[in-house]
Amino acid sequence: MEKGNYGYFDDKLNEYVITSPKTPTPWINYLGGGDYGGIVSNTGGGYSFDRDPRYKRILRYRYNSIPEDQPGRYIYIRDNDNQEYWSATWQPVKAAYDHYQCRHGLGYTTISHIRSEIASELTYFVPLDKKIELWWLKLRNQSQRVRHISLFSYAEFCFFDAAKDQQNVDWVQQIQQGSFENGCIFWNAFMKTWEYIFFTASIAPHSFDTSRDQFIGKYRDLANPQAVETGQCGNSIAHRGNGVGSFCHQFELAPGAEIELVYALGTSPDKNETPAMIQSLIAPASVKNLFLQLKNYWNDYLASFQVETPDTCLNLMLNTWNPYQCKTTFNWSRFVSLYQLGIDRGMGLRDSAQDILGIVHAIPVKARELLLKLIHCQFKDGHTYHLFYPLTGEGTMGEAQGGKYNWYSDDHLWLIEAVVSYLKETGDFSLLTEKVTFAESNQPATVLCHLEQSILFTKRHLGPHGIPLNGFADWNDPLNLDRGKGKAESVWTGMFFCRALNLMAELAAYLGKKAVAKGYQKLYAKIQSAINQYGWDGDWYLQAFDDEGLKVGSKTSIEEQIFLNPQSWAVLSGVADPLRAKTALKKAVELLDTDFGLVMLFPAYKEFRDDRGGISTYPPGAKENAGIFTHTNPWFIIAELLSGNNDDAYRHYSKIIPIYKNAIADRHEVEPYVYCQNILGKEHPQYGLGRNSWLTGTASWAYVAGTQYLLGIRPHYDGLWIEPHIPSDWKEFKVERYFRGIKLTISCSRSYPSGIYLNGVLLESANLVPFQKLNKETPNFIEVGISE
Amino acid sequence: MEKGNYGYFDDKLNEYVITSPKTPTPWINYLGGGDYGGIVSNTGGGYSFDRDPRYKRILRYRYNSIPEDQPGRYIYIRDNDNQEYWSATWQPVKAAYDHYQCRHGLGYTTISHIRSEIASELTYFVPLDKKIELWWLKLRNQSQRVRHISLFSYAEFCFFDAAKDQQNVDWVQQIQQGSFENGCIFWNAFMKTWEYIFFTASIAPHSFDTSRDQFIGKYRDLANPQAVETGQCGNSIAHRGNGVGSFCHQFELAPGAEIELVYALGTSPDKNETPAMIQSLIAPASVKNLFLQLKNYWNDYLASFQVETPDTCLNLMLNTWNPYQCKTTFNWSRFVSLYQLGIDRGMGLRDSAQDILGIVHAIPVKARELLLKLIHCQFKDGHTYHLFYPLTGEGTMGEAQGGKYNWYSDDHLWLIEAVVSYLKETGDFSLLTEKVTFAESNQPATVLCHLEQSILFTKRHLGPHGIPLNGFADWNDPLNLDRGKGKAESVWTGMFFCRALNLMAELAAYLGKKAVAKGYQKLYAKIQSAINQYGWDGDWYLQAFDDEGLKVGSKTSIEEQIFLNPQSWAVLSGVADPLRAKTALKKAVELLDTDFGLVMLFPAYKEFRDDRGGISTYPPGAKENAGIFTHTNPWFIIAELLSGNNDDAYRHYSKIIPIYKNAIADRHEVEPYVYCQNILGKEHPQYGLGRNSWLTGTASWAYVAGTQYLLGIRPHYDGLWIEPHIPSDWKEFKVERYFRGIKLTISCSRSYPSGIYLNGVLLESANLVPFQKLNKETPNFIEVGISE
Repeated sequence: MEKGNYGYFDDKLNEYVITSPKTPTPWINYLGGGDYGGIVSNTGGGYSFDRDPRYKRILRYRYNSIPEDQPGRYIYIRDNDNQEYWSATWQPVKAAYDHYQCRHGLGYTTISHIRSEIASELTYFVPLDKKIELWWLKLRNQSQRVRHISLFSYAEFCFFDAAKDQQNVDWVQQIQQGSFENGCIFWNAFMKTWEYIFFTASIAPHSFDTSRDQFIGKYRDLANPQAVETGQCGNSIAHRGNGVGSFCHQFELAPGAEIELVYALGTSPDKNETPAMIQSLIAPASVKNLFLQLKNYWNDYLASFQVETPDTCLNLMLNTWNPYQCKTTFNWSRFVSLYQLGIDRGMGLRDSAQDILGIVHAIPVKARELLLKLIHCQFKDGHTYHLFYPLTGEGTMGEAQGGKYNWYSDDHLWLIEAVVSYLKETGDFSLLTEKVTFAESNQPATVLCHLEQSILFTKRHLGPHGIPLNGFADWNDPLNLDRGKGKAESVWTGMFFCRALNLMAELAAYLGKKAVAKGYQKLYAKIQSAINQYGWDGDWYLQAFDDEGLKVGSKTSIEEQIFLNPQSWAVLSGVADPLRAKTALKKAVELLDTDFGLVMLFPAYKEFRDDRGGISTYPPGAKENAGIFTHTNPWFIIAELLSGNNDDAYRHYSKIIPIYKNAIADRHEVEPYVYCQNILGKEHPQYGLGRNSWLTGTASWAYVAGTQYLLGIRPHYDGLWIEPHIPSDWKEFKVERYFRGIKLTISCSRSYPSGIYLNGVLLESANLVPFQKLNKETPNFIEVGISE
Repeated sequence: MEKGNYGYFDDKLNEYVITSPKTPTPWINYLGGGDYGGIVSNTGGGYSFDRDPRYKRILRYRYNSIPEDQPGRYIYIRDNDNQEYWSATWQPVKAAYDHYQCRHGLGYTTISHIRSEIASELTYFVPLDKKIELWWLKLRNQSQRVRHISLFSYAEFCFFDAAKDQQNVDWVQQIQQGSFENGCIFWNAFMKTWEYIFFTASIAPHSFDTSRDQFIGKYRDLANPQAVETGQCGNSIAHRGNGVGSFCHQFELAPGAEIELVYALGTSPDKNETPAMIQSLIAPASVKNLFLQLKNYWNDYLASFQVETPDTCLNLMLNTWNPYQCKTTFNWSRFVSLYQLGIDRGMGLRDSAQDILGIVHAIPVKARELLLKLIHCQFKDGHTYHLFYPLTGEGTMGEAQGGKYNWYSDDHLWLIEAVVSYLKETGDFSLLTEKVTFAESNQPATVLCHLEQSILFTKRHLGPHGIPLNGFADWNDPLNLDRGKGKAESVWTGMFFCRALNLMAELAAYLGKKAVAKGYQKLYAKIQSAINQYGWDGDWYLQAFDDEGLKVGSKTSIEEQIFLNPQSWAVLSGVADPLRAKTALKKAVELLDTDFGLVMLFPAYKEFRDDRGGISTYPPGAKENAGIFTHTNPWFIIAELLSGNNDDAYRHYSKIIPIYKNAIADRHEVEPYVYCQNILGKEHPQYGLGRNSWLTGTASWAYVAGTQYLLGIRPHYDGLWIEPHIPSDWKEFKVERYFRGIKLTISCSRSYPSGIYLNGVLLESANLVPFQKLNKETPNFIEVGISE
């Protein structure tokens, strides 16, 4: 792992180290564990919110604005001996520096900076299970003389309702007010129907500002605020307008002296209790302890699955960055990033369902909690909301409108995938009998009944070819085929439905319900047959039939000849026979592969098509219109692995690993430590450019593909299924994994004899390690002979 | 009219001259005549749109952002001999200057600037009846040496859908594209379902940029774009992302030499036709001519009503700035300003209805067009939309939700006020038989029938005291009394209803429908009696009864003891007898008057009250919660005038005239040449601070109060009613006015004998100048003796 133009991986500390503030896009990190949190960039840009970025925003951020990536969590450092000043995070002053470094770690970001022999180290984090964020500053005089330094913080407050903050300037500007009491700056709306935002510091300030206008000054900006230029805040109380949390601290620093200063930001229902509650928490000793707790949390989290393979990049992904990204997608779905504003979307039902796959091994209790929220998004007829807001529970159908149907054909089926993955990981079948109400009523039903409703909904919505209707869209959101007739069918949904039927049949069988299982199998056979009769185009599977019954994704077309997903899912669902599977996968590679992964379809739509909808609003090569939609690549990889094409699969896997983008950061632009949702495809002039880093289903599916299919360590109702599909030039690999609370050390090697040895004893099955046979108290060592 | 800290009035040129770029808020002007247009500040900040700021935005603007008042229509001037650069509008570079001046004229703004002996004069305007805007630059070398200058334009394009531009960054950034063909920069969405934005210049450029990133450079901003620093654009074609129209022109200027360069911005359905169409238009000679046409238009417009009184400030308001503001409110209702973002609100039904009162004498044909649009917003049951979008016609009920009713009690009644004002001004009764469809159906009805429906709706929605129900709110938008019972009544609406009944009765009588007139009179008497029986609080009228039937605006309360509007409208409606009128007006002055006008109510709500709603979300003294809501002041002034309190009325009038704020601009902050909607009241710490300049019903009502009641020149069905209510120390005044196409010169003087002399002949009536008696071909001279 070489150093790139902008940074490198520090795998000892589990940090990505950014060495230049001028990254091609802001390279961000997430703070918080899913409740209080926010984003922070490598120059301190970003914002905060308390559980819900739409309705409880705390810090403002200006997307897509100039200057870019502002505002943020800033500290100005002023040398009072010569009136020079700079920022501890480079932005917003952007002064020259002697040293700059940003370390994005797991749940924290540290930015260190030196100028004029004044060294600062600023760490942002949200303590575990606390609804506050801390800015932990260490400032050191590295010179041989006494220095006089003023520090100015800058937190720009947002109206809790982030949409109104932008859109109802008239009202919001009249009703917000600031105050300063007991060392705390408070910010709130006059009517106080919500809580206060508070901002405080571990040392009493020299002066403060709550009014943004006062702090900045007229026709100045964040690069040259009036308060910083003049050397002190104005003790302004904002009676209206825009608010900031700015404290001015003044220090005399002896040669070599270091001070620590901690700022805390959060919300509070009460002005009086806040200061006392916070002060003990933010004493430097306490903060150090809170930080260690966070570090330990993540060490424990990652320990739930660790690998050692010949591929150090793969190791780094699977051991650190991929599970970290999975946790982030689990926290925020597709709601809040540099590309999603935390306002309109809310959490995605299908997105969150898939996000569960990437975290269920580590935090099954949290997975269960979210599952129950998702299941409550189901209507009695079986379809679900497409989106929901985490704090209010309020759901919507997303963009679905304009056709006959306002539902997506796949949302509800993802509940099955997620629940089954929870059951197999945990063995906790009590979930199935848990009662959850439907979205539109107080009527409860068991989780199992909800899953059955999912199946029934699709069963009741089959099209003219006996293939599931497309509704507003299938997983491919902007492919909007329903023009009012409601006749469009999704071949892909048919396959996904088959996979769901397989899972339900397997579950029913495991529960001893043979007749039920048989029913699912029968329906599976019917759909499978329809797909193979009507959905096969000769060399690959169609994507769909449009509202006129015409083929979508056929060689007979000029555009949209082939879609990626149906080829992958023909295998994932078991719908394709081996010959068709082989043919389809081969053709997919031939027509869709690029240097950075497979594109969604080929050839791209060259102009807007009313009968295809949203997908054709994108230029050729962008997003779903023949872009590399990274999420779909792990599905294809799994299909290749299931088909035994291990080397091909590994090659595909390597193409999408973000670490390799570190060397081409100027082209790829987005963060090299996390997967991004989309990369412009070969038909786009900016081929290779990534966007929508962080919040993408790629995270959980790349994790599933890597751990469960490539390494082949797959939870099952009865135990752990072990079936590696490693590349031919690998000799061995090792996994340490916790399974239902029990630690397993799994060594797989081509030099071992065939079969699985559990604690030295050869098991009956060539793949299954039965849970019952595991030592519950002492460590388990598993040796697996790879004979492929 | 003294010079203020920031500027002065040039009454010869009808311009306000701003002498410092650092005005307390951006001081703006409007471009365009209601179709293509936008706003422009004194430093070039602002944005553009083609007819609809929501769905056809052209230039972006960032509200409430840092740096403030950016972006805008910028030209960078670079001295290539020393690489220094600055902006022709001061912003965004904010370099030091030797001269700066901004002249806001009628429909145009000229900013002149000198630095390093390079003088620029930049004029923005929209030519009459054209859907383009021009930036007309003159650049002069004032030095004695040859100069080498590069110019860089900056127009930051917006996605047509301005809401999506802000909120769906993910999509919008992927689909926008730039191109450069035949000297034109084009910007459009890939799917091309809308038109192109184009930007071009009268001289072929040296180079260009369409990509904002390329022009600005990474981590730079508008103060130091990379292209300007390096001295040339990069000929960038944006395949995605943010777009700009930037041309680089390079000139060698001999000593004393001047060049002219014209930029044009607009939309076009076709890339090929645009360049040719525009090029001839923007040759400097053509532009000069277009500018003269605009000047002539406004000279003619203002000539429709000119006054000469002893009060030069009043003259300046009534002759220039007030009618100019009235035209602006007529164009944009409350939709697009520095406070209203041109996204959510749309046009206001009641707002536009009132706006018509301020322009109907000058542009009756346009008034008729808008009236028909407004009337189409009425539902069959008589209530109307609260808001509507001008381009799509789509309407909404605004914020009305949460109670039993989702309508405002007054919206539909304003149609009567507006139609009657049109009829009296024009005598064009064909309007009444025009057929207009209802909002929810294709069923047409005559305009007269629509007005009758307005009356019937209110008649059918009377409350327990026989007073009209409040619905979601009356004119006082945020006083939301309906908590679900739907019992709250608005005394003010009762008065407004009475005034509407009066107007309808008068109209019916004029149309010869005696029985109908009698019906209205009977209903009037009934409502009047209910108001006087239940709505009188002893010294003033109540505002309302809340949803529990309790008094709102009563001396028995601690807060909200008295509201302004019911006292004014008790007179405007004729509901109060002279004694009650006198008492109520006196008490209103006693309790509500301030240095800057009367506040809406007193005492303010001190905390949020769920039973009062929105009004109590504002802090005491802000907006409707006891702020000076300027709109209400002309109503009170009219009431004073109708009650014969001429000196008091004149005193109130003088308090709200914005010209007087020129001397206290640092306190008042907003533009001194137009009325603002609200001024913080005496209960607010920032008492005197204005906001929401420009778009306020104050414009039309101050105009009506000044021209029709103070000067007393009031159109009537039969002719012109003349009944001056001038202050006691005025001796005389003169008005030149067109009435139904006929020019009248009206001289009023205390030294004339009683009565009215038309062309030297004493008229029968002491007030009415019958239309039939006017000379149709030759000028008319009217002398009025003032005997009060």
